[in-house]
Amino acid sequence: MAKVVFRDPLTKHIVFEHTISEYLFSQETEYQQIDFFETPQFGTVLALGGVVNVTERDEAGYHEMISHVPLFAHPNPRRVLIIGGGDGGTLREVVKHPEVEKATMVEIDAVVVEKSREFLPETACAFEHPRAELIIGDGLEYVRQAQSGSFDVILVDSTDPVDAGVVLFTPEFYAECHRVLREDGILVPQSDSLIFYPERAAQIGQSLREIFAGVHFYTTNVPTYPGGLWAFAFASKGPPPFEEVNWERVAALEDQLNYYNAALHRACFALPTYIRRIIDAG
Amino acid sequence: MAKVVFRDPLTKHIVFEHTISEYLFSQETEYQQIDFFETPQFGTVLALGGVVNVTERDEAGYHEMISHVPLFAHPNPRRVLIIGGGDGGTLREVVKHPEVEKATMVEIDAVVVEKSREFLPETACAFEHPRAELIIGDGLEYVRQAQSGSFDVILVDSTDPVDAGVVLFTPEFYAECHRVLREDGILVPQSDSLIFYPERAAQIGQSLREIFAGVHFYTTNVPTYPGGLWAFAFASKGPPPFEEVNWERVAALEDQLNYYNAALHRACFALPTYIRRIIDAG
Repeated sequence: MAKVVFRDPLTKHIVFEHTISEYLFSQETEYQQIDFFETPQFGTVLALGGVVNVTERDEAGYHEMISHVPLFAHPNPRRVLIIGGGDGGTLREVVKHPEVEKATMVEIDAVVVEKSREFLPETACAFEHPRAELIIGDGLEYVRQAQSGSFDVILVDSTDPVDAGVVLFTPEFYAECHRVLREDGILVPQSDSLIFYPERAAQIGQSLREIFAGVHFYTTNVPTYPGGLWAFAFASKGPPPFEEVNWERVAALEDQLNYYNAALHRACFALPTYIRRIIDAG
Repeated sequence: MAKVVFRDPLTKHIVFEHTISEYLFSQETEYQQIDFFETPQFGTVLALGGVVNVTERDEAGYHEMISHVPLFAHPNPRRVLIIGGGDGGTLREVVKHPEVEKATMVEIDAVVVEKSREFLPETACAFEHPRAELIIGDGLEYVRQAQSGSFDVILVDSTDPVDAGVVLFTPEFYAECHRVLREDGILVPQSDSLIFYPERAAQIGQSLREIFAGVHFYTTNVPTYPGGLWAFAFASKGPPPFEEVNWERVAALEDQLNYYNAALHRACFALPTYIRRIIDAG
């Protein structure tokens, strides 16, 4: 069987090797190189720009943690905006919350959505959900046009800060998100590898702290991502509502989840000291 | 510069690639293949049996977590036994606790100790410590001969359950550890990759639960280990003392540590749901 080696884009260091049992799809769109392939160890894999984005086996650690931590932390998340997330995994988790009246997802690349529905049907399963809305378009442009105070939670499920993803890490984008959020709103941008690029999280933290009242980082484990330890920023317009989680809402959903649980919600904000030192210095 | 690829021993899957700037040492001893080399990204690396054991850059996540979690959880850890741990990193952390009157380390392979002192001097820095005792010998044999109730904490800093490491994962070894511990004693064996071998942690949990009153698992992140997420079992003769940590003792040491902190102590026992399901079924 063929093997494909994934290298870190900057250091060229191997971060993962996948054995490929079947190549499913490969296309360079206007925005990025898209590849789908089957692996014996991690199931179907989606790579964007030559970087592993989703694997069937370990996607829960990413999708459940980017969504459930802010959605359970928010007292009543009725309107949720997802920027990116073309594979549909984040949307699938968001609509599990009965409080969500409408989940709007803005993805720039229609091919990612279309092919995820074909090759990752268990991830891309919520596009037809009655409370889901899919918009193919530019995320920054969407928030620029959006009404002030119209969302409770914004999730930035972007690629890393390269190519089309760069604008989603700018102070301008964060400022627009702040404006578009209601007064107790929460913004969660994925914040890259804490092992290989902790300075990216430090930079994101610095930008967010200039705009948001509370900024903290939390982590998840995604074995097929470089270093395994992945960061999310948690930026809140009001005081960070860590302690105010309604655990009954959590208990009602826990059986449907494979990664997130109440103990992890409390635990995921604890960072190793050496990472805390880098982030606090940012 | 030469590159060396580390594969999982069973699946042959690449788990890490290191660029080697200088080869320092290579020898097959009676017990195992030992290699030391320099890398630009992770500093000096020690590999045992072709598996990365220690890297200068990320060893704190392993050595601080195997030692400080049980040592701070124990109300008064005066006598500590380390089985394995030839690189000296665990011993270095144990003697930081002023309560420890004597830390005894039993390592089977004198060459690992000798060469770690030469090539990893910041890890192997505590062998001459006045409260440290180094014994070159067989760990199972040592606990068989040891007096009942003579230790407060036992740390099993072994290789994975292959070759010479196999006996350190047997019910007989755990039963001897239980006998050798005082009544409020704690045993912490390293318990392998939660990503690639969660069934090993499940098996360890099953064996320990037959002997110890409380058995829980906690995790650390070691980027150069397969999957990044590493498990330790925490087996206590009495009730597990999670809540009784003396945080003043923690505060007095935190400045000297690079990974462990009070928030992580509380957090590290929270496991992702899919891993909890495998371990609870074990």
